[in-house]
Amino acid sequence: MTDRDVIIVGAGLAGLTAATALHAAGRGVTVLEARDRVAGRNFGGRLSNGTPVDMGGQWIGPTQTEVLKLVTDLGLETYRTHDEGAAVTLHRGVLTRHTGRELGLSEDAASEVVRLQVAAESLAERISLSSPWLSPEAEALDRRTLDEWLRANTENAEALEFWATQVPALFSAEASEMSLLHFLFYIKSGGMLSTLTGTTGGAQEMCVRGGAHQISERLAARLADAVRLSCPVRKISQVGNEVRVHFDGGQFSAQRVIVAMPPTLAGRLTYEPAIPGSRDALTQQMPMGSVIKVQVAYETAFWRKAGLSGLAFNLDDEVSVTLDTSPPDGSCGVLVAFFEGAHARRAVRMSLEERRAVVARSLVKLFGSDAAFPFDYLEQNWMDEEYTRGCYGGRLGAGVWTQYGAALAEPIGRLHWAGAETSDVWNGYMDGAVRSGHRVAEEVLAQLE
Amino acid sequence: MTDRDVIIVGAGLAGLTAATALHAAGRGVTVLEARDRVAGRNFGGRLSNGTPVDMGGQWIGPTQTEVLKLVTDLGLETYRTHDEGAAVTLHRGVLTRHTGRELGLSEDAASEVVRLQVAAESLAERISLSSPWLSPEAEALDRRTLDEWLRANTENAEALEFWATQVPALFSAEASEMSLLHFLFYIKSGGMLSTLTGTTGGAQEMCVRGGAHQISERLAARLADAVRLSCPVRKISQVGNEVRVHFDGGQFSAQRVIVAMPPTLAGRLTYEPAIPGSRDALTQQMPMGSVIKVQVAYETAFWRKAGLSGLAFNLDDEVSVTLDTSPPDGSCGVLVAFFEGAHARRAVRMSLEERRAVVARSLVKLFGSDAAFPFDYLEQNWMDEEYTRGCYGGRLGAGVWTQYGAALAEPIGRLHWAGAETSDVWNGYMDGAVRSGHRVAEEVLAQLE
Repeated sequence: MTDRDVIIVGAGLAGLTAATALHAAGRGVTVLEARDRVAGRNFGGRLSNGTPVDMGGQWIGPTQTEVLKLVTDLGLETYRTHDEGAAVTLHRGVLTRHTGRELGLSEDAASEVVRLQVAAESLAERISLSSPWLSPEAEALDRRTLDEWLRANTENAEALEFWATQVPALFSAEASEMSLLHFLFYIKSGGMLSTLTGTTGGAQEMCVRGGAHQISERLAARLADAVRLSCPVRKISQVGNEVRVHFDGGQFSAQRVIVAMPPTLAGRLTYEPAIPGSRDALTQQMPMGSVIKVQVAYETAFWRKAGLSGLAFNLDDEVSVTLDTSPPDGSCGVLVAFFEGAHARRAVRMSLEERRAVVARSLVKLFGSDAAFPFDYLEQNWMDEEYTRGCYGGRLGAGVWTQYGAALAEPIGRLHWAGAETSDVWNGYMDGAVRSGHRVAEEVLAQLE
Repeated sequence: MTDRDVIIVGAGLAGLTAATALHAAGRGVTVLEARDRVAGRNFGGRLSNGTPVDMGGQWIGPTQTEVLKLVTDLGLETYRTHDEGAAVTLHRGVLTRHTGRELGLSEDAASEVVRLQVAAESLAERISLSSPWLSPEAEALDRRTLDEWLRANTENAEALEFWATQVPALFSAEASEMSLLHFLFYIKSGGMLSTLTGTTGGAQEMCVRGGAHQISERLAARLADAVRLSCPVRKISQVGNEVRVHFDGGQFSAQRVIVAMPPTLAGRLTYEPAIPGSRDALTQQMPMGSVIKVQVAYETAFWRKAGLSGLAFNLDDEVSVTLDTSPPDGSCGVLVAFFEGAHARRAVRMSLEERRAVVARSLVKLFGSDAAFPFDYLEQNWMDEEYTRGCYGGRLGAGVWTQYGAALAEPIGRLHWAGAETSDVWNGYMDGAVRSGHRVAEEVLAQLE
């Protein structure tokens, strides 16, 4: 007899979704969470005027059907991201207004950006989402970095600079830091680039009223005592027909254990017996992205009066992409901005005041002098979060998918793996996390006694 | 008052060298080792006839002066690696005898290999060993992989195939898995390629009679009770003016702590307060190489009679490089072979019998039918070693040196870092480990009260 049927490590969306499904199937489940809160890479903040903002994962797109179902089921509401008015692009000091789809680049550069996008998507069509390492020519695609492919395929500097803002916007990492295969897998997983980068019709279409962290909070509320906070798991021992999970403050036994953490953090647990080398090596080289997410709040969304949507591509500065994320009640105007990838790695060496000044200078260039006077500035450095250690997710560099990818979600004895990084569809997103929770729950249910 | 002046985590060469220096300076030191043995990536095996063999780090070159001094000081003896006779190269089924320096390739390919070597070494001259990220054009060198650079600089397939055996022979990893900057740093650190790959005059010139693990064992014997085995460290807490080190079975406090583990393993400890994101991110992306080291033992070194040295480059098979590592007493003949990089990652999916057959088939092609009848076969899979998790060392992929390299050896409060990966000179080698031990001991002595 074990203490529980299943122990789940991590109360993010993946772990809580799995727990909910197992609980609904009548199974005894405990979720152990290291933090004193649930929701992992979702985290709710509040501006000084009380307006809730998303300090982490925020948006939901119309094809993210699993997380949308969950939102509805939990009685939460979504609202549309503001998407009216012109976008702006800043390049070498020149500000260009455009529709958003036009990119705001020179004609040559814009057509190169699109040509590369079409070429990448055509390559991506052939990728196997369930087993990227079995895709045609997987080894050749995996040996190259995305950066190498981009440079081999265009000499247009402006187009490359635009890509150099878009890749970190998706990965919080640079094109040289991932294999071409990983990039192709990832864009196919989310329905190709215009879906990933788009607002209306794309991955940034909706927000959750009050903040996306409420999805996890409501799931956790339903699970009640089954979720235990402030219980960092340190060791997982498979002994005979049971698994023992050791956490700060105690230990539980279960038939099966689901580890619902980013792979790099899963690799830090102690396993008995020691985990096979091929899984361990994967977790040694699946680093998290680097991002500081910034919320800048104004009395009004003044840019709207100037006919601007709040969407900006900034090829010149440390803050590359902004979006209007004002609350639906119109009580104030909020721009969200990001230090991503290399920008984030430099930004951590600045003081808060320096970062705030860097952001303000950028926003003034993009939206005018009104941007110099926010009433609040909030930021979240995800690299310093001990129990996340980076966002948006784990990426795979050259050679990793083909040599270690098979270990990503493959159970090891009574250990199962979940998390946004393990999903075929919407990998890396909230929707992928939810899907991974469903998948792992089915996997475990089929094995429980 | 703390329990000790300094606690050292890890009883490999780096940790034991540091402990010896601190002890000699009159300081109270304890070394905590997770395994039930010392010596880390050195490990002694024994053939069925009692002959000692090195299952891990083995060779010492004449410019590896720090480890050589230690060997002498400890009363150990070295002997020369057998290096007389012809080398062989197998390429597309054709076996070529040559002097070793000739490579055994077609004239075109050989000259391309050398041209690339000269070009790489010329680039390497400019690299700063103490701060690779500050080298001229560091970002451009770091953004590219070695593989990308090789392919951009030659179209000679045979030359590329040869490089594809030599890179894993040095790194246990493929050229696509490291940045060009890392490769250049590493070859300069060891005195350039012919020193790294050479036997006489190079890094494989000498072996330690009885096995290289004895260096650590003799250091540990002198330190006596100061070395505690089977004490895996789990958590390091900096509290006020002391550091508390928690291990399975107890805890000690000290003024300073030296973590002398591969960076990827150092990243798995729990730190209080949590370690800064920039150090954590480095340890997320400094994976260890992949190698299975194989010792194949025969009644005699039969290849010598055929005028062969035992050195082979095999461009066709899973075992790319072999060397004669017979004991100096002539009691038997031993060939050492390696599954390295991609070969190792495939080899772990084979059974022991399959690997043994793969090795035997290769050795027969290289050295004739006598190679089919070894009296013993020993192998060591370093990826499965829980407290090493790969050899020869940790490598840095595209973008890592320039964005995170500064965190590699920089102390964090009362925490200091050692290990072969932190050395400017002979990085990744036993000599580098010893140098890192000296460096960190000085660093700590300057801070002790």
